[in-house]
Amino acid sequence: MLLENMSYVEVQAYLQEKDIILIPIGSVEQHSPYGLIGTDFITAEAVAREVGKRIEVVVAPTLPYGMSQHHMAFSGTATLSPITYINLIKEIVSSFLEHGFRKIIFINGHGGNINPVKTAFDQLKYENKEGIYAIISWFLLKEVQDLVYDLFGDKEGHHATPSEISITKYLRPEAFKIKPKLEKDIEKPNTYWPLNRYEFKNIYPDGRMESASWLAKEKYGKIILEEAVRTTIEEIKKILEKGVNNE
Amino acid sequence: MLLENMSYVEVQAYLQEKDIILIPIGSVEQHSPYGLIGTDFITAEAVAREVGKRIEVVVAPTLPYGMSQHHMAFSGTATLSPITYINLIKEIVSSFLEHGFRKIIFINGHGGNINPVKTAFDQLKYENKEGIYAIISWFLLKEVQDLVYDLFGDKEGHHATPSEISITKYLRPEAFKIKPKLEKDIEKPNTYWPLNRYEFKNIYPDGRMESASWLAKEKYGKIILEEAVRTTIEEIKKILEKGVNNE
Amino acid sequence: MLLENMSYVEVQAYLQEKDIILIPIGSVEQHSPYGLIGTDFITAEAVAREVGKRIEVVVAPTLPYGMSQHHMAFSGTATLSPITYINLIKEIVSSFLEHGFRKIIFINGHGGNINPVKTAFDQLKYENKEGIYAIISWFLLKEVQDLVYDLFGDKEGHHATPSEISITKYLRPEAFKIKPKLEKDIEKPNTYWPLNRYEFKNIYPDGRMESASWLAKEKYGKIILEEAVRTTIEEIKKILEKGVNNE
Amino acid sequence: MLLENMSYVEVQAYLQEKDIILIPIGSVEQHSPYGLIGTDFITAEAVAREVGKRIEVVVAPTLPYGMSQHHMAFSGTATLSPITYINLIKEIVSSFLEHGFRKIIFINGHGGNINPVKTAFDQLKYENKEGIYAIISWFLLKEVQDLVYDLFGDKEGHHATPSEISITKYLRPEAFKIKPKLEKDIEKPNTYWPLNRYEFKNIYPDGRMESASWLAKEKYGKIILEEAVRTTIEEIKKILEKGVNNE
Amino acid sequence: MLLENMSYVEVQAYLQEKDIILIPIGSVEQHSPYGLIGTDFITAEAVAREVGKRIEVVVAPTLPYGMSQHHMAFSGTATLSPITYINLIKEIVSSFLEHGFRKIIFINGHGGNINPVKTAFDQLKYENKEGIYAIISWFLLKEVQDLVYDLFGDKEGHHATPSEISITKYLRPEAFKIKPKLEKDIEKPNTYWPLNRYEFKNIYPDGRMESASWLAKEKYGKIILEEAVRTTIEEIKKILEKGVNNE
Amino acid sequence: MLLENMSYVEVQAYLQEKDIILIPIGSVEQHSPYGLIGTDFITAEAVAREVGKRIEVVVAPTLPYGMSQHHMAFSGTATLSPITYINLIKEIVSSFLEHGFRKIIFINGHGGNINPVKTAFDQLKYENKEGIYAIISWFLLKEVQDLVYDLFGDKEGHHATPSEISITKYLRPEAFKIKPKLEKDIEKPNTYWPLNRYEFKNIYPDGRMESASWLAKEKYGKIILEEAVRTTIEEIKKILEKGVNNE
Repeated sequence: MLLENMSYVEVQAYLQEKDIILIPIGSVEQHSPYGLIGTDFITAEAVAREVGKRIEVVVAPTLPYGMSQHHMAFSGTATLSPITYINLIKEIVSSFLEHGFRKIIFINGHGGNINPVKTAFDQLKYENKEGIYAIISWFLLKEVQDLVYDLFGDKEGHHATPSEISITKYLRPEAFKIKPKLEKDIEKPNTYWPLNRYEFKNIYPDGRMESASWLAKEKYGKIILEEAVRTTIEEIKKILEKGVNNE
Repeated sequence: MLLENMSYVEVQAYLQEKDIILIPIGSVEQHSPYGLIGTDFITAEAVAREVGKRIEVVVAPTLPYGMSQHHMAFSGTATLSPITYINLIKEIVSSFLEHGFRKIIFINGHGGNINPVKTAFDQLKYENKEGIYAIISWFLLKEVQDLVYDLFGDKEGHHATPSEISITKYLRPEAFKIKPKLEKDIEKPNTYWPLNRYEFKNIYPDGRMESASWLAKEKYGKIILEEAVRTTIEEIKKILEKGVNNE
Repeated sequence: MLLENMSYVEVQAYLQEKDIILIPIGSVEQHSPYGLIGTDFITAEAVAREVGKRIEVVVAPTLPYGMSQHHMAFSGTATLSPITYINLIKEIVSSFLEHGFRKIIFINGHGGNINPVKTAFDQLKYENKEGIYAIISWFLLKEVQDLVYDLFGDKEGHHATPSEISITKYLRPEAFKIKPKLEKDIEKPNTYWPLNRYEFKNIYPDGRMESASWLAKEKYGKIILEEAVRTTIEEIKKILEKGVNNE
Repeated sequence: MLLENMSYVEVQAYLQEKDIILIPIGSVEQHSPYGLIGTDFITAEAVAREVGKRIEVVVAPTLPYGMSQHHMAFSGTATLSPITYINLIKEIVSSFLEHGFRKIIFINGHGGNINPVKTAFDQLKYENKEGIYAIISWFLLKEVQDLVYDLFGDKEGHHATPSEISITKYLRPEAFKIKPKLEKDIEKPNTYWPLNRYEFKNIYPDGRMESASWLAKEKYGKIILEEAVRTTIEEIKKILEKGVNNE
Repeated sequence: MLLENMSYVEVQAYLQEKDIILIPIGSVEQHSPYGLIGTDFITAEAVAREVGKRIEVVVAPTLPYGMSQHHMAFSGTATLSPITYINLIKEIVSSFLEHGFRKIIFINGHGGNINPVKTAFDQLKYENKEGIYAIISWFLLKEVQDLVYDLFGDKEGHHATPSEISITKYLRPEAFKIKPKLEKDIEKPNTYWPLNRYEFKNIYPDGRMESASWLAKEKYGKIILEEAVRTTIEEIKKILEKGVNNE
Repeated sequence: MLLENMSYVEVQAYLQEKDIILIPIGSVEQHSPYGLIGTDFITAEAVAREVGKRIEVVVAPTLPYGMSQHHMAFSGTATLSPITYINLIKEIVSSFLEHGFRKIIFINGHGGNINPVKTAFDQLKYENKEGIYAIISWFLLKEVQDLVYDLFGDKEGHHATPSEISITKYLRPEAFKIKPKLEKDIEKPNTYWPLNRYEFKNIYPDGRMESASWLAKEKYGKIILEEAVRTTIEEIKKILEKGVNNE
């Protein structure tokens, strides 16, 4: 059920029965010396594709680039401005609306995307577009957070977390052969948010945000991913029950 | 401590000691037949000005117009597009930053403003602006919500709520002489969000969102406002403790 | 007749009879050490609200923030860019047009707003919007200027004028308790316009533009305000006679 | 002294002595059945080039396209949106500023350009650009208006005027061989401004605005052009006396 | 050498030696009933990753969404507006420039991307950004076109070509199990370009543009991909010889 | 057949028979010490107007300002940003489309305009506008290039070429009286493209790009212009055969 592997004829047939599409979004940003630059879109893609397979819904191509301005002091990060990201999301949604999709759900792996994606939804509604738009950030789902707390306690932190790194380790073990294994200190600075790139680097010098990234393990990744898939499906079911009232 | 009543010389003097400013924001939107179109900015202004007086911080002029696209099917509502609102907030913050303010706190009376205001903060940080930016929505503060629940239970709802109408009734009793007093049904539709203007009107035909607006009373308004002021001050104190790390 | 105190039901009833709305606009900018940062919106609001009361037309919430780039070298000034201000004005007008208002009149207290507001009108017409749009700057009305000349002669100047400060003194006497009373020189530089913030400060070091701000008196404020109200009403009557030809 | 005929080496030499440049702007819009679509830029170009020759200042290439939205119901009109026109003017000014020009004067033949050009100046100053920017609309100069009144009285009107058509007739007599010579009624509707394309056509069905276009004569064109050149030079001299204070 | 699998520490190390990065871009658009919606990014990604492996240069995450407005009449297509796409490309390039990359090469699988990508390069240079930016469209490389002509002659066409479908068939054979195998007519309309979505559908009713998509074979895909990789490497070598003159 | 000399009534009559319009575009940019700043629009205008005369099609006013960012280090150059130029082109095309023109052909004298003009066409089609849009760059036409090669061989170069200077010499001989006649070296740097203004100046210090500008002669200009006119007419005939399919 990957849109990228379908023809338009197959999409037309799908739209006879369903009007839901999942769109994985993430970021291209540093995840400390321990994690992958692609962590956020790799995890979101894995969740979305497994969900798509289980409940038989179409999954659009993954949009890897996101809003990562605060990580720009670390090499390899690529960020869109919030306003460009809004326009990007808006035009992708508009495209799918034109074909008849009415439940457009972003599966998100990156906190920095949430504000602009929600504002893109507002802008679409300002332009009188119809339909249900949602963003599900797997790492914010309560059941996932409970599981992660059981596994890592307060060492999970907020960026380059052992949970997200565990998933990527499970999915791409070979990429971790040259990542460091040393433990570092965990600082808990009393700071504000959002930070610009210089403020961020000053407060979080190696890119972690209060996380013990080194605790990541493949076996944890497998169960966290499973829980993310399961609860994302629950969320989608709730959305599907709402129908689209304006038709 | 109203900026509008100060001269630039007085602002310079203030900036020798403090670098915090409060900016009340709200909306110009229908609040059912029971409430005032200005409800959101009237309440935010009242909270901000009382806070400003108690803790001696400058309060900027109130920005009444906000992001209210979903209420446009009701006469008298005026909305900005999310993108224009982002630029507006961004330029107001930039202006105050130029003078040396470093803690810029929006006191908000309207849920629809939250996404674009937060995205404006992101955009400012993308442009490498420094300083602490925050939005405090008085109606989302936990203590306020607890008090409101005690007063109205699940009849509070989400728009044209008895709590916000109580505050405006307390502040502007004369405006309520010609408002209706009849009770109506409270519908609890299982709907999605955001809605466009037509979807909103279809689901919430008289502009209320699950709220018993008619329960509003001046005396409730007085105590809710007091609680909003008190907890907003608590929030501001927490922000002040964070300092600005990049200086 | 304040829109902010009405419900949408009352606006609907009003629109059965009239399609005119007044919108006070001003600025948040320095007005020398003698005057208030809010001078321009305070005066515009006072004129608009008194006009609204006398001729029974709706007055929208005051938009305090305006185009004040040239005053940014003085603390406390907040400016919008001309392009953002155009979009802001355009979207407010568009909102009121959607409800059926067809005579949309800005009551203006700040010269810097005139170009972008007029350009916003052009942009609305470029987008084929119908209706009458007008901006009445009370301080540019001939009768007001005649009165002011009688009172202050060539000491009126162009910014932080004794006339506008007189009105604010009349309206908010308490704010003037700590303003200076000393007289200064009145320079008449042969300069060009517009100026940027650095050029402005260089030419007008204390923020006055050829004005004897200290001549302001409450009693003058009262009669200037009355004349501004009276002649604004005359202007509005002329507009109302024009009808809207395209309906 | 036409920029288009110079090499950059010659411009460099010029900038050693002077920092003024004239830029003719007009419109591509209907001028009734009697006048030329190019009227506004043809007249502005003629004024600017003759001025440039007499006082030896550089004249930039003519920008024919302007803000003519209200004439779009008449074939052959081409309009820019006000916002695009602002950006266009802004970037042309910015370009000349980069080379060291500091007195940038638009010689204008079209009323519809005035608001966006002035707003472009505001935007440039908002962006802290230095220098003197001016727009001289030859048809608004008092001496020109006096002469035109002597020639045509109240039959001059406001668009496709006998004065502007006289100048083009003087400059391009051959283009008038197939233009009509019949007289029509002169209507003086009590209307508002600005109008959109449909409102305009409705009120001014043949494109004239209260003007007796047929009164245009080559001989009048010659003397009006001469007066426009003479008074434009006076205006420029006043500007040159102001210097640029910020250097 | 996939950026997504690296940490920022590894990117820093890479930048000590090289300053080149490849960015695969494509489209999400119909490719007739015979081909995959993801064809353009799947092929570009395959070329870029193989090139990256052979010459040891970093490959950024694939940007699947592109400028596909002309295919929007076919279900499943998602298009960005040209202006949003320009901003997107501009911000990705800007991000990599900030880290020290100076040779930024887009490996492109879609003709519709070329104009906006080149305009984004122009806009970056307008903003005075330094470095080499290039777009290599594998299907336009002469050697590739020669090979394709040998294989398919004039049945290659311009969209949903047997060559690009061959590559995807080679890479994702399983996706072709349910694609049709019937042959259709090949029309050669004498048309213009660009077309909007309705014009396109009218002229090319099943989405092919003069191509015999059914001629695609896995074995052809393998050799075309190899030739695309080989000649792309040649192109990159030419670029590397140019150095960056401004450092 | 110059639009600027027509009335709207004459345009209406023309549109009864034809729906084609030519728009000359060029640039205001340095052309070495040997050539004119207006070279690109002077040549494009000459080609377009002669073509218009011969095949009796309307020619719109010349747009002299173009996208010349790379020449900004040389005095007298004026550039638009690519994005503003896109909007400008888009709005001119939109204007002519509204009147019924359906074949809108830009006659171009400047390479830097090509990317943004083509992207403007894409943007118009994205907005579902109909009709044929084309850009004919006379200097890129094969027959013209063949002739130029016969005349100048590899001394033609890429900017301030003897061919374009020959045409302007033929058209405006008086402007060349004070241009230098000395020969210089011809460098053939192995560089990349596009360049920003500093990179360009560094590589091409006197503004020529590998060209022997001094070889320009009036007599060459005459025959090159003739060939450009002749082959442009051929191109237009090909376009006219394509019709507009969507009507």
